[in-house]
Amino acid sequence: MAAKIRVTVWNEFRHEKSNEKVKQLYPNGMHETIAAALRQDENLEVRTAYLDEPENGLPQSVVDSTDVMFWWGHMAHGEVKDEVVKRVQKHVLEGMGLIVLHSGHFSKIFKSLMGTNCSLKWREIAEKERLWNIEPSHPITQGLGEYVELPNTEMYGERFDIPQPDKVIFISWFEGGEVFRSGCTFQRGHGKVFYFRPGHETYPIYHNPQIQLILRNAANWAAPLGGFRVDSCPNAKPLENVPPKTVDFGKAGVVQKSEL
Amino acid sequence: MAAKIRVTVWNEFRHEKSNEKVKQLYPNGMHETIAAALRQDENLEVRTAYLDEPENGLPQSVVDSTDVMFWWGHMAHGEVKDEVVKRVQKHVLEGMGLIVLHSGHFSKIFKSLMGTNCSLKWREIAEKERLWNIEPSHPITQGLGEYVELPNTEMYGERFDIPQPDKVIFISWFEGGEVFRSGCTFQRGHGKVFYFRPGHETYPIYHNPQIQLILRNAANWAAPLGGFRVDSCPNAKPLENVPPKTVDFGKAGVVQKSEL
Amino acid sequence: MAAKIRVTVWNEFRHEKSNEKVKQLYPNGMHETIAAALRQDENLEVRTAYLDEPENGLPQSVVDSTDVMFWWGHMAHGEVKDEVVKRVQKHVLEGMGLIVLHSGHFSKIFKSLMGTNCSLKWREIAEKERLWNIEPSHPITQGLGEYVELPNTEMYGERFDIPQPDKVIFISWFEGGEVFRSGCTFQRGHGKVFYFRPGHETYPIYHNPQIQLILRNAANWAAPLGGFRVDSCPNAKPLENVPPKTVDFGKAGVVQKSEL
Amino acid sequence: MAAKIRVTVWNEFRHEKSNEKVKQLYPNGMHETIAAALRQDENLEVRTAYLDEPENGLPQSVVDSTDVMFWWGHMAHGEVKDEVVKRVQKHVLEGMGLIVLHSGHFSKIFKSLMGTNCSLKWREIAEKERLWNIEPSHPITQGLGEYVELPNTEMYGERFDIPQPDKVIFISWFEGGEVFRSGCTFQRGHGKVFYFRPGHETYPIYHNPQIQLILRNAANWAAPLGGFRVDSCPNAKPLENVPPKTVDFGKAGVVQKSEL
Repeated sequence: MAAKIRVTVWNEFRHEKSNEKVKQLYPNGMHETIAAALRQDENLEVRTAYLDEPENGLPQSVVDSTDVMFWWGHMAHGEVKDEVVKRVQKHVLEGMGLIVLHSGHFSKIFKSLMGTNCSLKWREIAEKERLWNIEPSHPITQGLGEYVELPNTEMYGERFDIPQPDKVIFISWFEGGEVFRSGCTFQRGHGKVFYFRPGHETYPIYHNPQIQLILRNAANWAAPLGGFRVDSCPNAKPLENVPPKTVDFGKAGVVQKSEL
Repeated sequence: MAAKIRVTVWNEFRHEKSNEKVKQLYPNGMHETIAAALRQDENLEVRTAYLDEPENGLPQSVVDSTDVMFWWGHMAHGEVKDEVVKRVQKHVLEGMGLIVLHSGHFSKIFKSLMGTNCSLKWREIAEKERLWNIEPSHPITQGLGEYVELPNTEMYGERFDIPQPDKVIFISWFEGGEVFRSGCTFQRGHGKVFYFRPGHETYPIYHNPQIQLILRNAANWAAPLGGFRVDSCPNAKPLENVPPKTVDFGKAGVVQKSEL
Repeated sequence: MAAKIRVTVWNEFRHEKSNEKVKQLYPNGMHETIAAALRQDENLEVRTAYLDEPENGLPQSVVDSTDVMFWWGHMAHGEVKDEVVKRVQKHVLEGMGLIVLHSGHFSKIFKSLMGTNCSLKWREIAEKERLWNIEPSHPITQGLGEYVELPNTEMYGERFDIPQPDKVIFISWFEGGEVFRSGCTFQRGHGKVFYFRPGHETYPIYHNPQIQLILRNAANWAAPLGGFRVDSCPNAKPLENVPPKTVDFGKAGVVQKSEL
Repeated sequence: MAAKIRVTVWNEFRHEKSNEKVKQLYPNGMHETIAAALRQDENLEVRTAYLDEPENGLPQSVVDSTDVMFWWGHMAHGEVKDEVVKRVQKHVLEGMGLIVLHSGHFSKIFKSLMGTNCSLKWREIAEKERLWNIEPSHPITQGLGEYVELPNTEMYGERFDIPQPDKVIFISWFEGGEVFRSGCTFQRGHGKVFYFRPGHETYPIYHNPQIQLILRNAANWAAPLGGFRVDSCPNAKPLENVPPKTVDFGKAGVVQKSEL
């Protein structure tokens, strides 16, 4: 693809305003740190959006001109308007990639695409996490070694209530004794979805160069090959000659024609 | 399981009131024909419900006491209340089986569980359909041969906009030239979902003994092994000893700790 | 199924003869401990077989009369005859269940069914393992809680070189820092395959009541619904009328008929 | 990837020598027609190999320098040496893409990678086939419409005895009444495998421009991102501190530690 991949990094952008620790780590919001990391890849054309902008920062024109969207939300999932969620979901089905980060597992958009509750266990004691690279030949893991270590993270533990992923890319080991499917791919309609676990607001996860590499890889992987149509049950003419039929509406007659 | 499987057959029950042909085929509604077919299996305890009953026939008490639900809807998907859809979806995630029939592919409940548009092509010229049995060792196909033939059906054609099924049980051949994934299984939460294509209201599909056998098989297959909990992100104590942590909130410090 | 499930527990049965610790734990061989555990379920009819018996303990008559086979091997994978492997593989494709235990991941039969190398990391320092139950509504996990703990195990770590499992039932956490997909289901032909990781010969794993419960559950889950045919490319008569054809063997002619 | 993708088109190359019709259609062998089609993509560097060359045309040096291999075989599957099959299989696990064509479904290499019998139904009456494009957003289907029509083909019908594909790309409709999963992707180790049904030797299938487009797309899709290691069960040092253990080899002691 000669044209650049148009990325929109969406952030709730609330913790950064109310919590001093978060503000210190992400003075311009996590979206700007993520966007800066993505801009290191010149194939990506990156802009940002956040909840408190008009139409939650995602008017139709922004969604329509986005190839890959990143999504970070946590404390205000309920404030994202239903019409915005539907707009984003429709564009995923038309081919837009969607990278759902960390606490975004409980966002309206992720739950709408999964059809499940998306629950998980959690704990915040700054423990160590080691993400094992289960698919070293997948585009998302290129440039990584066997695992990525994060010295301090919030723990997410199984059972993660998601449909069977197309692929499980990372499985996490946590110091406190849990495991988690931390990188999962899904296709929904024509769009690729990647859930990526790390990214708690009170730890400098998005400053980690390996995490940044994964985000860039994911953006490239999730980009659609084109724009695709989402139909709404079109009527279709027959491709073969079908002679006129006499239907026997008597129940017995039809039953006799069936073969066990 | 010693106890019987509690089945609720839900029907929109509108075509049967307004269309003479449908009334002739299903004088008491398709739900009663389906229920009668299911009752041939004494392991199944079957009741029915329909759209125009209070709470769409599905108050909390009915949903809670259902192990497997059948769903037929077509012309009035939009009239099913959102709260009823959420109630049914939650119970699927807790383990209830759901058998979605024919035009139910476009119902709110199926779309909510799939996360996709669930569009498909269609045509109604009473053409022949042959459902190929792709999984002869699956519980749903026991007692069938290599295929089931329906002399007159509405056609549904690909592309069917669904997530990758756990298993494709039937693939249909249509006289007019199309194919369709006509029997698909999905797990959502702890519940099993089976989409089964045949069943147009103007043909006597639900009087066909092979179709009836498939419905009975599906009810038995979809029954949960028990009731399961759907969590809402519980906090978890560590299972291993995690010593107190000092987090370096300076970005550089953390970055140095990561290993490429 | 009224008839009992006919189970054959196959064991290499070598470590038990040469290693004092193993002999102490499994005086009659691991197969007898496993068989005794399975016999607690009166639905199972259990016999044993081992490598040094004639035809590796698996003549055609034994394989043909087996519904579910358990497989434990380690130091003598290469001594299992290729014809025995083919015989077992064919019967799996015809519907026989196969439960592959621990070091059986590197057996000829498992590698033949997977098509991959089935490599993994390992370490033997008696560390703790916690198997997380990822599928609490699956038949194999009934009666278990959220996890199973083994105080002393050999470690197996990712990347486990297997095709994508149909379902990952257990993911293990290891004290030393690794994770592993410890319970994986696969269908091959009409047969169900379950790989289950625990079971090192120098630890009393098969005396653990939870492990024994999993083995019983797995035997019941893997039992076929019947005997199924494995075809060898049969010729088929057309089901529809196909008029005689004139094929244009000139390349250009055909090309013109295709539509882009 | 700046470097070109190194493609080897392997052909049995027997029908072309013994059958006049085949010779007319493919005077230099099907491999040369396929290779010429692939060479229209300048990203592909294409060579050919065939059965009757030394080492079946696939010495270690050829396999090692191949990124994507095409495989056409039919009447002489048994003549491919087992050591060549193992060599090719190992390179697939290391990342080489493999495109298996038509009757190659019954080749040693495909059966080895699948672990199943790979049987199917067949019939040769020059009937019409229509391949429905189930995954219009997949790299393999770019540039295609909703379906591809072949006026004269050999029929392959279900049940196709393969493990569940990662994705079903094409489903075929046949004039005589059957359906078939005609385009299936699988990952084995680090290698991508694509089975593509069309291609019977007595019809000019490989001269069809849409089929040629699919072959080029498949070559690009199957190319590995790099060379990957296939391990053979390495021992691993612990990543976390594991204190020395006292194992209780008495069965009872261990049992008490487990928790139900």
